[in-house]
Formats: sequence, C-alpha cells, structure tokens
Amino acid sequence: MTRFDSPETPSTDPEFLAVARGDRPAEVLIRGGNVVNVFTGQIDQASVAIYGSRIAGVGDYTQAGRVVDAAGKFVAPGFIDAHMHVESTMMPPSEFVRVASVHGTTGVVLDPHEIANVMGIAGIRFLMDDADGLPMNIMWSASSCVPASPLETSGASIGPGEIAELLDDPRVVALAEMMNFPGVVRAVPEVLEKVRLGLDKRIVDGHCPGLAGTALQAYVAAGISSDHESTTLKEAREKLRLGMRIYIREGSAAKNLEALLPAVSESNKHRFCFCTDDRHPEDLVTEGHINHVVRKAVRLGMNPTTAIALGSIFPAQHYRRRDLGAIAPGYQADIQILPDLKSFRPSQVYFHGRLVAEDGRFLPERSPTSSAHTRSATVSSVHLPSNFNEASLRVPARRTGGRIRVIGMNPQQLVTSEMIVPATVESGRYVPDPRRDILKLAVIERHKGTGNIGLGFVHGFGFQSGALGSTVGHDSHNLAIVGVGDADMAEAARALAQAGGGQCVVRDGRVLALMPLPIAGLISDQPIETIVSQQRALLEASRSIGCEIPDPFMPLSFLPLVVIPKLKLSDLGLVDVDLFERVPIEA
Amino acid sequence: MTRFDSPETPSTDPEFLAVARGDRPAEVLIRGGNVVNVFTGQIDQASVAIYGSRIAGVGDYTQAGRVVDAAGKFVAPGFIDAHMHVESTMMPPSEFVRVASVHGTTGVVLDPHEIANVMGIAGIRFLMDDADGLPMNIMWSASSCVPASPLETSGASIGPGEIAELLDDPRVVALAEMMNFPGVVRAVPEVLEKVRLGLDKRIVDGHCPGLAGTALQAYVAAGISSDHESTTLKEAREKLRLGMRIYIREGSAAKNLEALLPAVSESNKHRFCFCTDDRHPEDLVTEGHINHVVRKAVRLGMNPTTAIALGSIFPAQHYRRRDLGAIAPGYQADIQILPDLKSFRPSQVYFHGRLVAEDGRFLPERSPTSSAHTRSATVSSVHLPSNFNEASLRVPARRTGGRIRVIGMNPQQLVTSEMIVPATVESGRYVPDPRRDILKLAVIERHKGTGNIGLGFVHGFGFQSGALGSTVGHDSHNLAIVGVGDADMAEAARALAQAGGGQCVVRDGRVLALMPLPIAGLISDQPIETIVSQQRALLEASRSIGCEIPDPFMPLSFLPLVVIPKLKLSDLGLVDVDLFERVPIEA
Repeated sequence: MTRFDSPETPSTDPEFLAVARGDRPAEVLIRGGNVVNVFTGQIDQASVAIYGSRIAGVGDYTQAGRVVDAAGKFVAPGFIDAHMHVESTMMPPSEFVRVASVHGTTGVVLDPHEIANVMGIAGIRFLMDDADGLPMNIMWSASSCVPASPLETSGASIGPGEIAELLDDPRVVALAEMMNFPGVVRAVPEVLEKVRLGLDKRIVDGHCPGLAGTALQAYVAAGISSDHESTTLKEAREKLRLGMRIYIREGSAAKNLEALLPAVSESNKHRFCFCTDDRHPEDLVTEGHINHVVRKAVRLGMNPTTAIALGSIFPAQHYRRRDLGAIAPGYQADIQILPDLKSFRPSQVYFHGRLVAEDGRFLPERSPTSSAHTRSATVSSVHLPSNFNEASLRVPARRTGGRIRVIGMNPQQLVTSEMIVPATVESGRYVPDPRRDILKLAVIERHKGTGNIGLGFVHGFGFQSGALGSTVGHDSHNLAIVGVGDADMAEAARALAQAGGGQCVVRDGRVLALMPLPIAGLISDQPIETIVSQQRALLEASRSIGCEIPDPFMPLSFLPLVVIPKLKLSDLGLVDVDLFERVPIEA
Repeated sequence: MTRFDSPETPSTDPEFLAVARGDRPAEVLIRGGNVVNVFTGQIDQASVAIYGSRIAGVGDYTQAGRVVDAAGKFVAPGFIDAHMHVESTMMPPSEFVRVASVHGTTGVVLDPHEIANVMGIAGIRFLMDDADGLPMNIMWSASSCVPASPLETSGASIGPGEIAELLDDPRVVALAEMMNFPGVVRAVPEVLEKVRLGLDKRIVDGHCPGLAGTALQAYVAAGISSDHESTTLKEAREKLRLGMRIYIREGSAAKNLEALLPAVSESNKHRFCFCTDDRHPEDLVTEGHINHVVRKAVRLGMNPTTAIALGSIFPAQHYRRRDLGAIAPGYQADIQILPDLKSFRPSQVYFHGRLVAEDGRFLPERSPTSSAHTRSATVSSVHLPSNFNEASLRVPARRTGGRIRVIGMNPQQLVTSEMIVPATVESGRYVPDPRRDILKLAVIERHKGTGNIGLGFVHGFGFQSGALGSTVGHDSHNLAIVGVGDADMAEAARALAQAGGGQCVVRDGRVLALMPLPIAGLISDQPIETIVSQQRALLEASRSIGCEIPDPFMPLSFLPLVVIPKLKLSDLGLVDVDLFERVPIEA
C-alpha cells in the first residue's frame, strides 16, 4: 500500500490563511453542496475551500485550482470509529484503510490488544509502524490488560513501564479499555498504576459490561471516562448519569445500537459516540464500517446530522483532537460526499484534502515495500507441545456415569451458560456425543511451548464429524479446536501450526479449507479479496461437515475468553468466570 | 487570606475508591438533595459522598463522618467563569475569592492582560502566585496581546518567549484572547507565532468583535476556538456555524446575554459557555458573578439545568479539565447547595470537599502573610513627566475658528463616535466648553517616564467644573484625566501619582475623593468592604461636580482603548481606530 505523503498543513500557514480570506484560490473547492454542520446540527448550502491538508473556509468561495461539483449532494465529515481492534478485520492497517476508506472512514482509534497478547510491545509497534503515513487518522490507545486474565497463558504481557512509554508516543491518545474492572473497583495497585499513568498523560477508556451500583461508581470515580459495553438502556442510562461518554457499539460480534438508541436525545447527544469494537472482513466489505452504524441509526429514526456527529465530532472531541470531525475552517479536510443521507455510501472520500476513494474504489496504489514490511512481522507464532498428537487430546474420566460441565454456546452471544449433563464415557475417557450436540473443545497454548492443553466439552456447534480450528481465540489467542474426533482435531492443530496460524476445517484427516493468518496468527498478509474468498471457503467447508451456524469461527474464537461469563475454557482448563476460578470437568 | 491547604485527592486513591464502593464511610455526605446532572440535563434525588477533595459517588450512600442535609434543596456544580480579567474587580485573586465564592464560583479562567500591560511577566507572576493555594480552581490564560496596539505606550510587552514559558506552566490552560484579529487574518508572522505556540501546547482563545465573512473564516481557520465578543444573534450564529465555542458574556461593562440567548438550543447548548470578562467590585458584591448570569438566563427563559451547564461543565470541557464542572464520581467536590433554581444564591459552597462559604459569608480566615505578599507588588507605577504642571496640559491651536475632532462618548458603550465641532479658542489654545459638554481629555504615559501626553476633547461627561482621573485606562493603563480646567486636571494627576495609582475626583484644587490602587495602579490592597465604600465615595464626589453618569470611571477607563472604534486617545494622541492611525485634533 502506498505510504501516503500528506504532511499536515499548519493552520497558521500564511498561504492557507490567504485562501481562507479569499485572496488566493483554493487548491480544491467542493462547490455548492449541502454541508452537514455538526456544531449546529443543520445543513447549509456552501462551498468548501481546501488548501493543503486543511479546510480553509466554508462559504461563498469560488476560485480554485480544481472544482468538485457537489450540487444536490451532501458534504459531511469523514467518519471516526471511537474504538476498534483492527485485528478483528484480519488485516493490518495498511489493508484495512483500503477497505474502510471507501465507506467514508477517515479516522479510527485502534486498541492493538489482540496482537499485544501474542507479540507484546513488538506487535503493537508493528501495527503502529504499518499505519504510519496511511491516508487515515489512525490513533492508538495503549492496551491496558495484557494478559487479560491470570486464568490463561498469553504470549506476552504489557506492564506499566511499557504503558508509560506508549502513552508518551504522540500517536497514542488514550489508555485503552480498562477491562480489569474488578481490579479497578477493588483498587489493585498494579491496575491503578496503569490508570494513573493514563490520567496523567492522556485519558482512560473503559470497558465494564453489566457493572452497576456502587461498583460502577468506584470504576467511574477512578477517572475512567468512557464505556462501550452497555447492552441495555438501563445500563447505558446509569453510566451516562455518572458522566461516562457512552460509545454505542455496533460491530460484527456485538450489536447494541437498536437497544441503546432510545437513550440518545438532542439534549444529551454530545455524550455519545459510535464504535464497532470488532468488524469482520466480509461485513466490512459488504455492509461497511461506521457508515453502516450511521445508516442503521437513521433507519431506526435518528436525525441524520445527529448520527453523523456521533460518528465524527464527538469521538474527535473525546480524544481531544481539535481539528478532526467537522467541516469547518481549520479542520483537516477529511470529507465525504454523500449522494443522500440514507444509504451513506460516499461517492467521494477525501483525506487531508486528497481524493482517496471514489464510488467504492480505493485510489492510491499498493506500494512494493509493503510486503517486505509485513514479512518482518510474520514470525512463527504457533508452538505446539513438543510431542503433540491425538493422544494429547484425550480426557480421562475420573469416574463412570457421572455428570460433567458442558459449555452452553449461543452463536449470537459472547456469554455462555454452564450445562450439567450426563457424561459419555468410553475406554475410561469422556468423549463427545454428536447426537446430543456435545463436541470436544481444546485450547492449546501456542506461544511459549508450555505444553498446556485445556480440554472440555461444548454444546451448540451441531456438526457430526470433523473439526474446526483457529489461532484467533480471545484474549490470549491460544489455539482453539472444536471437533468430534481426536484425529481430526490433532490434524487441525498441525495444519495451523504449519501455516503459522489461521483458521481451518478438517474432516477425515483432510484439510478441507484453511485461511492462513501468518501475522501473529491473527492477521492475513493477503489483500481483502483473498481474505474474503478464503473465509467463504472456510464457511462452505464448515457447512459441508454439518455446521449450520453462519460463522462458527466467531463463537469458537470467544470460547477461550475467560473474562466473559459463564463457563469458558483456557489452556489451563475450564473457568467459571463468575467465580473467577478454574473448575473441574466433573460437576 | 488563608492559603487553603487542600491537596487534590488522586482519583486512584484506594481509600477514595473504598468510599465509592460503599465499603468505607464518606468524609462528608450531602444527603437527599436534588442533584443537578449536567450530563443528562436532569435532576436526580441522590446523596453525594465525598472523600478528600473528590466526589466518590452519587447515589444511595448513607455512611459518613459528617452529614449535610440537602433535602428539598438543589445540589449543583460550582460555577466556572470561562473568561475574566480579575483586575476589573480591583482585587487580587486572594480577595476576589472571598467575594466570588459566596456566589457559588469555584473556578475561573483569568487572563492577566491588564497587569501585564503595566508590569509585564512580573505582574502575571504576582497574580499567579497570589492565587496559589486559594480555595478556587484558578486557571490562567497567557496574555497574547501585550501591548494591545502600537498606537500607545504600554508598561511592558510579552513576546513569544514569555508566552512559551507561560504555556508550559501547568496552571495555564490556554493562550488568552487573541485580540489582534487583524494580525491573525493578515498572517503577521509574530502574531501567528504566538497562535502556533498556543495550539502546540494548549488551546487558543479568541476575541473578534464584529468579525464576519472571509476575515472571520481566516481567523477561525488559524485554529482559534472560542470567542466572547459576539453582541448580536447574527454574529453569534455565524461564529457558531464555523465551529467556535461561543462564550456569552454578561459582565459589568458588556452585557450580551439577552441578545444572544435565542442562539442557544438544547441541541447546540454544548457549544456555549458563560463568562463575565469584566466584573466591577460593587456588582460582584451585590449582584454576584456567574450566578448572576445564570439567574438572568433562567429569568429570560433558559432551562435551569442548561444554564448551569453553560456555567460549569462546558467551560471545564473547553479547557480540558476532565474533573471539573459536574456532580459525578471522580470529579472534584466543588459543589453549591441552592435553595432554589431561581435566585442562585447558594446556602453552602464546597471547594474540594470543604465548606468555604455559607449564607453569603466566606469562611476561611485571612492570613497575616498576605499583606506582605501584596506589598511586594506595590511598586510605584505612576511616573509623571519630569517637569509636569498644568501648562503640560495646554492644547495649542494651530488656527483660529476652525473645527476640531471631539470624541463622542456614550457611557453605555465602548464604541465612541467622532464628532466634528467648531473649536473654542482662548489665548491661542483650544479649550473645553462645558456649556456644550466639551471637556478636555489627557492621557499621560505613566510607565516609563517618556513624558508623552496625549490631549483631546470629549463629549458626554457633562460636568461643569473639576476633574476625574484614573490609572485604569485600557489597555496600556496610562493615566486618563477628564476635566474642565487644567489646574484641577494637573492636581488629579499629582494626587494619583502620590497614591501610587488609583481613581480620584478633584475640584478647585482639592481632592474630593480618592481610591488608591497601589498594585500596578489597577488593584487595591484593601478588603472588598473598603473598596466598595471608596468607590461609593468616588461616585458621590463625581455627582457633586455635576457628573450624572452612574459610573463615569468606566467610560473614562475605556477612552484610551485604541482597539475599539471610533475615535480614541492614547498617550501618543488621537487615534482613528477604523483607520488604525493617529489623526490631528484639527478636523
């Protein structure tokens, strides 16, 4: 991808001010459009004069080097995603930009939490360096909770020293979502040290699903200023009342827009932002990014200019970026031209005054240097236990005929249930029982070669043979495999180790489909078209083994997430998240 | 005044978080009041738990070391004045706090522009040091335009080096109002250098009365983010549309609230703040401070919670003070208890969790060290020309019977007119003609002993004998004297020089009243009660010489202000502000 050579024009540049005065022609003039004003909430017919990277004026300008006729169209600020993990797109920023720009995104706050759990600070630096010079305002938040939990084995950890170093980087705008809310509430010193650093140097973003009452008061009191985990109106309203900035999340995994929309009024709208948190490759291509959220909000009845403001100026203000998120003098010329305020499919997108996308096409060319850069991060990140084989996946039965805990998986939710069911025992081992939709789940530590393998059972995938494997497995991203037979599961593990990470479908010892994710086992080094076709092949293969969930890799990747209730599996074994401790398979 | 020993409680203090959780009693509990929520615009019945300097929680707290019963009352954040010159109160911050606190003020952004014009950086440091440790969040903006104009002689100048140093001080939150808007618009390098420093280190406040069209676009484009000079709805709306934060000013000199109120809606309210800019001593005592503005806004029909927000959270947000301006967990416990939402006369005011004012009384005692500190700044600041006498005030007539320029003064406005009238000539000199209400005006350079005396004539004071003198004379604060006879005018000058600055009334060679302002000729070293009684004596004396303007010292102090149209007088002579040049007395 081309490094986009777009130095910022200082707002005090004399030539720039001459354009603002009308004494010098604009470089680009977007003429006669309906300009969305996020300050007044109104739409004004006006021309937008651009010089260098910035908007010089919004009014009756006429002289320009290049004129763009926007008559009858809408001129709006580019969208800003207030919180996202780019790893969820399986693309590095350089590829993400190609896809998101065409949807009107010109800014995003990225928390590199996933790669940090695999590669630590080196992974964060890789993504940050990859993002430098791209035609998008890529802001970073410093991942606060690596590892996310002591009940699993991550590939790396980020301590206060590294946090402090990150927060001093001008590209970093916040301490990222403080997921260890019990640690904040209970005033655990190491946790508070990170919060303190965040407050001293920047701001601190939150993450506190379901937190309420005095525990929420304590979390907010510590200085944490935002939350994107509200799922109910009641929850959002309580957090709003306590002064949190509410991010309404509408991503690929969690969709909260419809539930939270009634909390927003004209009077309190400035306390809200939009974010996606996670966005999967195909959704990004077909539905879009923040434009998808804005489109849906408008369809659900939100005023279009309000919806645009939640996706532009309010995120910019939260992160203290005074020159982003509006069509106004002195602001960066990050602009989208929209044929209407319903579909939110921009006909043109400008970043820093330069056209970067038109009618769904991203314009800058790929650079030949990018693949070399990417290769530098393509380190082998999948280390199976030394003498790993299918026997490694056996679950010895401590008794015969008892009951066991099974993870009750709902493909629509991150939350699982704990099912207590009669065990199926064969040759002294607990075994899957596909007729009851009870499959085996393994989480194999892949970072450090500890040999840890967590084993358990899961209900909800519903296939009758074969196995699915993934090196995407929140938050430590160990290797998660679900299957019917140990041989196929072992083959899935070996195939993914060989690919350096990825996702695959195996049946009868044969790999039916495999998408390599060679960057940390999370991110592809291929263009979006390849990623999407590989993903389609994966889903087709999973259907071929009898799995009817639209995307079974999504719930699979969240089964190791030992910070979301109820029953989860890490490389250390079954975890009851409510109790915050490991539990035996026997109930 | 007592230095108020109130270290800030870190929001990550474990004891503080224990109070938030309800695991430890609050130190102070404000129980059962109607809490004004500036985030939702609603009023919630709740108790406010305080530990140290901060609010730990707002909800159902019950345990506390001390309980304040607020049942039936309103609990609101303390007010913050977004922009003010404390010199207008004739008090140093240590005395100002005693008066403003009782009106519910707990924060103010001070621009020490007036003292800077007299004493330069030493004057700014004096005020900043005076403010340290006071029970109020006193924030500073770095005076951007000292001197305000090349058409006058100031006592000092503040260059980019000093600006940079000030902006690095953690007490400084902004570059203060950039009054040289022509310089910004025309891209004058030294002016832009200051703006650049402000943008790099903090934010930049504006001041652009009447600026519109492309000149306003250029001013905003430079990065200037606020303005407090709008006087008409049209002007405020144009600035709002371009993204400026609009400060609605309602002070002692300029009163814009009634005109601008219709610009504010629930949808755009977060783009507005309240400020006073200038507040005179007696107004501060009798009417109040920001509470007076809020009271008037509510009387004019504004929603009370909206009015409170414009005087609390929005100024705090503009200056990026994340923990000021709201009753919410983690915020500083700067709280007022109001019997109703109409009079805005707080029964109690808390700063950092400690009661500082009750029923109109300020509680902390004066400290014996304060007067010594004040004396350190009481330097002689009035230097008359070496052989000054009444002959120094004569205006030689270059011709007989011609017409001269006379300043048309309207006591309600800063703007003057240019009157062209037949001259009265005696013994080869232009002389006053009290029957036509044409008096003599002198502006005597007092800082550097240059001997400069600007002489002219003014219409509008309307007295028949005697003279008024003042060392308050915006913006350079040279000695301004208006009078009928040269002898009384010279006596006024001598009396003020002897007093080290101040304001006086003279008739028949006798000083009828004099208020000393020994600190830079701008600020008193006396308590507010003395200031008010001295000021009343001055006004009584001015009435006794036939002056019927309620406060003639106010227009007098603005006659040397050579940045406000039309005809003004500096120590260098008459200035046509529209032409931005000196003009002769002969028309």
